[in-house]
Formats: sequence, structure tokens, C-alpha cells
Amino acid sequence: MPFSVTILGSSGALPAYGRFPSAQYVNIQNRHFLIDCGEGTQMQLMRYQIPYQKISHIFISHLHGDHYLGLMGLLFTMHLLHRENDLHLYAPKGLDEIITLQLKHSNSTLRFNIVFHDADTLNQKLIFEDDALTIETIPLIHKIKCCGFLFREKQKPHRIDKGKLPSEILLQHIVILKSGKDIHDDKGNLLYKNENYTILPHHSYSYAYCSDTAYTEQITEQIRGVDLLYHEATFMEQEKDKATETKHSTARQAAAQAKKAGVEKLIIGHFSARYKELQPLLEEAQSIFPKTMLVIEGETIDLDV
Amino acid sequence: MPFSVTILGSSGALPAYGRFPSAQYVNIQNRHFLIDCGEGTQMQLMRYQIPYQKISHIFISHLHGDHYLGLMGLLFTMHLLHRENDLHLYAPKGLDEIITLQLKHSNSTLRFNIVFHDADTLNQKLIFEDDALTIETIPLIHKIKCCGFLFREKQKPHRIDKGKLPSEILLQHIVILKSGKDIHDDKGNLLYKNENYTILPHHSYSYAYCSDTAYTEQITEQIRGVDLLYHEATFMEQEKDKATETKHSTARQAAAQAKKAGVEKLIIGHFSARYKELQPLLEEAQSIFPKTMLVIEGETIDLDV
Repeated sequence: MPFSVTILGSSGALPAYGRFPSAQYVNIQNRHFLIDCGEGTQMQLMRYQIPYQKISHIFISHLHGDHYLGLMGLLFTMHLLHRENDLHLYAPKGLDEIITLQLKHSNSTLRFNIVFHDADTLNQKLIFEDDALTIETIPLIHKIKCCGFLFREKQKPHRIDKGKLPSEILLQHIVILKSGKDIHDDKGNLLYKNENYTILPHHSYSYAYCSDTAYTEQITEQIRGVDLLYHEATFMEQEKDKATETKHSTARQAAAQAKKAGVEKLIIGHFSARYKELQPLLEEAQSIFPKTMLVIEGETIDLDV
Repeated sequence: MPFSVTILGSSGALPAYGRFPSAQYVNIQNRHFLIDCGEGTQMQLMRYQIPYQKISHIFISHLHGDHYLGLMGLLFTMHLLHRENDLHLYAPKGLDEIITLQLKHSNSTLRFNIVFHDADTLNQKLIFEDDALTIETIPLIHKIKCCGFLFREKQKPHRIDKGKLPSEILLQHIVILKSGKDIHDDKGNLLYKNENYTILPHHSYSYAYCSDTAYTEQITEQIRGVDLLYHEATFMEQEKDKATETKHSTARQAAAQAKKAGVEKLIIGHFSARYKELQPLLEEAQSIFPKTMLVIEGETIDLDV
């Protein structure tokens, strides 16, 4: 089952060298999510043939233009292509007002319902849960209210070892074995010991998206050990003062965060327009945390392969 | 002196096949204008190396998303790149409110001043005039308030025929000759007859931008004889019912308008996403008005060459 992140935008506030502003498509067990939606996201979704009408939840980290200005166009396109399913929208307060005003002035009523959720940018908060995963906000430090999002798969079912399964076993017993439990008869006698018939579940993956933020250790515990961390790296260390002033991070800081939190892999993005070549940012981060990659538009990182 | 139109977007409401939504850059005698500003316009301005910080006036035909959703991103980019000059913005009422709300939620104050002008979409109205040109609104018929824009150069100066100019002539007399007048002495005696020393002025060009509109003869007289007409052609004639329903035009109708108004050249655009190949739209229009071209992104039509 996929646990994948597709990069749609890699640029900071100023799009440059053909790089688009922030947006990522996340597919977790065929649940379809969009994180941030900078200008041009709908064109990127089309270019990379993402099934964007299937996106059920959109998460906007903050209301700087490079993180949400593509949303209105995407909503109109979904509408024109006859979307009918609800769309859940998580964002700091204000986006509902912006959308409502733009709909009013275009005299439009969308064919589908938008369910607005105010994202809590000050506290870690569970904002989504179903049988397969949870999503929490990650409070970040930026010039305006801003949060990241942490996607965690729940424990997956134990896998039945078919070769060992007795032919007379009941379907209801298989369901119990998948949940990891032993099976007893009505009198409490052990019928099937789980470990004899199952293999341990597949790994449950996790992804932390840390959008625009100053370096902060307040997030370290929350993201500890995630399989994949996206952390912005707008600047290089030589522009650290600029990073501090604008509440952004350097590539080195992103890597330090990854190291401190003991994550598996780091991807960095949100590159300033001052950097035409990105290799130096990568090298700066890798000098601290070797398992770092640059976000590259159109590339998909699928953890479950 | 340039009188040029650069196409930045050619798509209708749904961007498709890599085509961007409506936007055109107009350079008239080194005055820099933008007409409409669909999503991604700033990327297109960069891609085609347009000096976008020099744009002094932006004209938005109407508040459907595909005609203005790129504006906010462009404003932020101008701001980040330290623009200080005023920017004049002409649009149907409402855009000021949308911009103001988005600035509020991003906690931003632009470095430059936006001068908002409500465009009159119901009457032909002079909205800009300087020593070289005038700009008027063209009332159009669409689902919401919508207008086009008519750019007309004023009469240009007579050109001095240097070979015929007496060496003793005064500078102030040259200025008078350029204005097309004869020169007399204090007693009223003819000193220099204009036609002996000058060549007729260069042609004064005109461009009519007719954005989203149903076919309407109410515009015909206003655009009569323009050198270049942009007329939307969202559909082909076989989709005429759809055009009527959505208050758009067919390629045939655009061509009929060009023919009726006796314009020199026609360019058609705002193509529906149903058309991957555009040649059939061109052929349909050319069957009525041979001097028709498709708008192609990145191409510049310079009339003064």
C-alpha cells in the first residue's frame, strides 16, 4: 500500500528558475491529501497526472501567499469538472473568509461542499483519524500563525501465514488473528496461538511536514523517529541572519533538527530565489545529516517499496 | 517605438495541455501594461523575460478566477523585489476587497501603493490618457460584470525631413513643425510651410482586447477599424449552444465580429480545455476572416515593425 509524497513545488516565496511554490501530494493507503497549495499547483497536479479529484483533505500550513494562492483555482477546476464529494480544508483561521469572498465576487456556488477546519497552530492537535492513520498539527515558529502536519499510520494488521493456516479455520477467526490476538474457545481454552499463524505487521510509516519555520526544538519530540521529515531550508548557513530575521531555517538547521529527532530520512525545500544551484544546500545539510535529499518537483518518495 | 502584445495565457477557465489562463503584456511606446492576470502569470512573465517591475497599470476584465487569480502572487513578488512605484489597478468593483483581505491575513503591507480604479463595465469610458495614448473600457456581455480594453495611440508627431531643413532654423520652429503646423513670422507671413519640411507621422496603432463575452454587436462601432483585435473564441461553432449558455463566443463569431468591425488583424484565444488541437478553431475563424491568428504563449505581436 502506498505511503508516498509527491513534490509539486520546491520554491520559497519567489518562484524562480521554473520552481513552483510549496505544494505536496500525499497518498497514504490510497487516501489522497494535499499539503499547501501555492500558485500553479493545479497545473502541477495535471502535469504529474495526480488524480486530484480524489483529494479529500487539503492542509494549508499558513496564509502566506506562496502556500495557498493556488487553492482558489484548484477549487474552481474541481467544480468545473463536476466534483461532488466534500472537500475538507484545514488552515489557520481566515482562509474560509478569503474563499467565501472570492466566490461571492465571481458569483459562483461550488458544486461540492467545503468543510472548513481551523487548524490549531499553537498546540499539537489531532485533526484527522480513521482506521489507518492519524494526522496532527505541528506548531511552528513563523511570522504569522503556522503549523506543520504529522501523518502517522496506525499499526497495520498481522499478516496471515497462509501455509500454516488450518483449512477448517473460520473467517471470524482470521479477523481476530489479523488484529494480533490469540483465539480461545467458549471455555477459554487456547485454540490458535497468534504467533503460530501470523507474520508481524508491515511497518507503520510516518511523515512530518514542517513548513516555514525558524529552527525550534519545540518540535523535536513530536517528530522523533519519523520515517520521513520535510523541513524547510530556505537559506544556507551563510545567510543565517536573514533566516533568523524572516523566521526561516538554513539547510544546516534543517539537518540538525533531523539528527536531533532521529528521523530516518530528511527532505529539504522552500529554496530562496537567490539559489540557482541547489547542490550547495544539499551538501550543507548532508554534512550534518547524510540521509538528506532535495525536493525535486515531479519526484515521488514512496516509503513502502 | 513598440506597439506590442505578448501572450502569457491562452486557456479558458480550465488550464489544460500546458496552456495558462488569460494574461497579456502590452508595450506601447515603452509604457508597460498587463491585461488580465490568471494563475501563473508571474511565472510566465519570468519565463518570457518581461520587465514586469515596469508594469505601471494592470487591467482586469472581470472577476472570474481565470482572469485574476495570479494577481496576488504577482503583487507579493513585486513587493519582495522592492518595488516602490505606484501600481494602478483597473477592475470591476470587488478586487480591492479581495486584495485587502489577503494582505490582512498574511499580515503584509506592500512597499508600494496600489491605486484602485473601478472599471466601468457598462459604458465606454476613457480610463487612461497621456500624451501618447488613450485607453477605454469596452462593455462586454458575460455572466458577471465584464469589460474589454481599447488601446489607441494618439496622432504621432510629423517627422522632420532633415535633408530639407534650412541650417538656420530655430529649435522652437522644429517643435512647431513636428506638431504639423506651418510657421509664420510676427507679422503673419509664412516662413516655413510644414509639408515642405516634414514627412507624415507614423501610423497610430490601436488594439482592442475583448475578453470573455457573448457575441454582441454593441461593441462593433467602438472597435471599428482597429489594427489588432483580440476576441475570445472559447468554443467552435458546433458548441454554439454551450457558448450561448455560458456567454462565450465561438471562433466563427469572433471572426464575424472582426469582419463586421473591419479590423486589420484578429487574434483568438481563451480556448476550452476540450480542444487539444487548436488548428480547427483557427480554420473556422479564417473561413470568415482570413487574417486570424491563434494566440500562442510566449509569442509577441509587434505592430510597429
